Amino acid sequence: MSTAAIVVIGNEILSAKVVDENGPFLARELRALGVELRRIETVPDEVPLIVDALRRCLASARWVFTSGGIGPTHDDVTIRAVAEAFGRQVVHDQRTLELLRKSYGAALNPARMRLAEIPEGGRAEFHEGHLFPVLSLENVTILPGVPSLLREGFTRIRERFRVAPIFSRALYFSLGEGSLAEHLDATVARYPAVAIGSYPRFDAADHRVKVTFDGRSQAEVQEAANFLRARVPAAAVIREE
Amino acid sequence: MSTAAIVVIGNEILSAKVVDENGPFLARELRALGVELRRIETVPDEVPLIVDALRRCLASARWVFTSGGIGPTHDDVTIRAVAEAFGRQVVHDQRTLELLRKSYGAALNPARMRLAEIPEGGRAEFHEGHLFPVLSLENVTILPGVPSLLREGFTRIRERFRVAPIFSRALYFSLGEGSLAEHLDATVARYPAVAIGSYPRFDAADHRVKVTFDGRSQAEVQEAANFLRARVPAAAVIREE
Repeated sequence: MSTAAIVVIGNEILSAKVVDENGPFLARELRALGVELRRIETVPDEVPLIVDALRRCLASARWVFTSGGIGPTHDDVTIRAVAEAFGRQVVHDQRTLELLRKSYGAALNPARMRLAEIPEGGRAEFHEGHLFPVLSLENVTILPGVPSLLREGFTRIRERFRVAPIFSRALYFSLGEGSLAEHLDATVARYPAVAIGSYPRFDAADHRVKVTFDGRSQAEVQEAANFLRARVPAAAVIREE
Repeated sequence: MSTAAIVVIGNEILSAKVVDENGPFLARELRALGVELRRIETVPDEVPLIVDALRRCLASARWVFTSGGIGPTHDDVTIRAVAEAFGRQVVHDQRTLELLRKSYGAALNPARMRLAEIPEGGRAEFHEGHLFPVLSLENVTILPGVPSLLREGFTRIRERFRVAPIFSRALYFSLGEGSLAEHLDATVARYPAVAIGSYPRFDAADHRVKVTFDGRSQAEVQEAANFLRARVPAAAVIREE
């Protein structure tokens, strides 16, 4: 199974200074790649809490992505946390260090040298036309928190995560959940490999409930949708997508 | 210490069908109330994973809020998970059941009766002018996932969480993080009770780094900002907020 988990490192998100864009971006990307996202943990810039979240994510998903906490300042502790989660040391990536030396010369202070830090055994991947490397250690990809940089980094490596697509159908009902529930139960029992979600609306939308069907088999997803349709009066289905 | 944690229950968020609005809303509200948000966990509609997240949140925060998974369908499992996290049974709230009986009469099927479910010993609080009760068990508040309903529910009870405010200052610098880092380190060391964050920009903003100072003592927050200002050339500070 191709599964993923995300650790968002960010006091700025927990303190509501900014709204996280990276979790939703990665969720969309992973979905398009056919990867099932199993959890997102948003934690403070504190090494023990990041290590704890990383270990849980590593235990529950094939791929782990971190967002944020990379850089030269005191609140950038993600590299240290990833290293600790794997029982590794923090070292300097030699190619990055070389580039920093060329770029900063005599101004290469200890803070700027932190930009070359990487967990021991990790990779810093450079790509033509991009200044920053994408960092990873085994199945953990370490992405920057600045949304434009995270998107740029992920886009360079996204194709390596692509697997069989997840197919999806949706039915929109004029019935409420209280009337649909028994038919949903029957559909869930009949199609265990299809993930079925029920989402009520209480606003002026044209439907009262949207039911979604997700699965790896396009035929089975469509069958599950057909099965539910057949159990309710035809007029109760407003549309299918 | 007044701290909080949020468990967002939602396959629809992990599968990128919708972007979560409830985590950011509660983060803003809690911040305004002076409550420190320690973590947000977004997990699937699966009882064992919700129970696990709840236990972790209960161990690390004074108040826990859940978002989503309430309702009459198969994917609404939050009440069961909260009950299980406390070793309780799921029971029917009698007042809610009475209201459902009046409202549905003979159409009160098992699915609709689930709307009256509550963990044993929990509270269903009704407020004048609102149809739905706000559910809670001890320090866990159980909120619906539909954003308008979550906001309505939280707004009715928000004042009970208010504590001393968190004060905040921000400095905007024309210097990069590599130049600021040593001065930030000195400030962090000098003002341990002030949370200091450093946020670089790589776009066309008028500043290269925003530094934030948060704390319960307004005087100390201002002192920390003054201390950092005094360590850099006056021209490096673009503005203070």
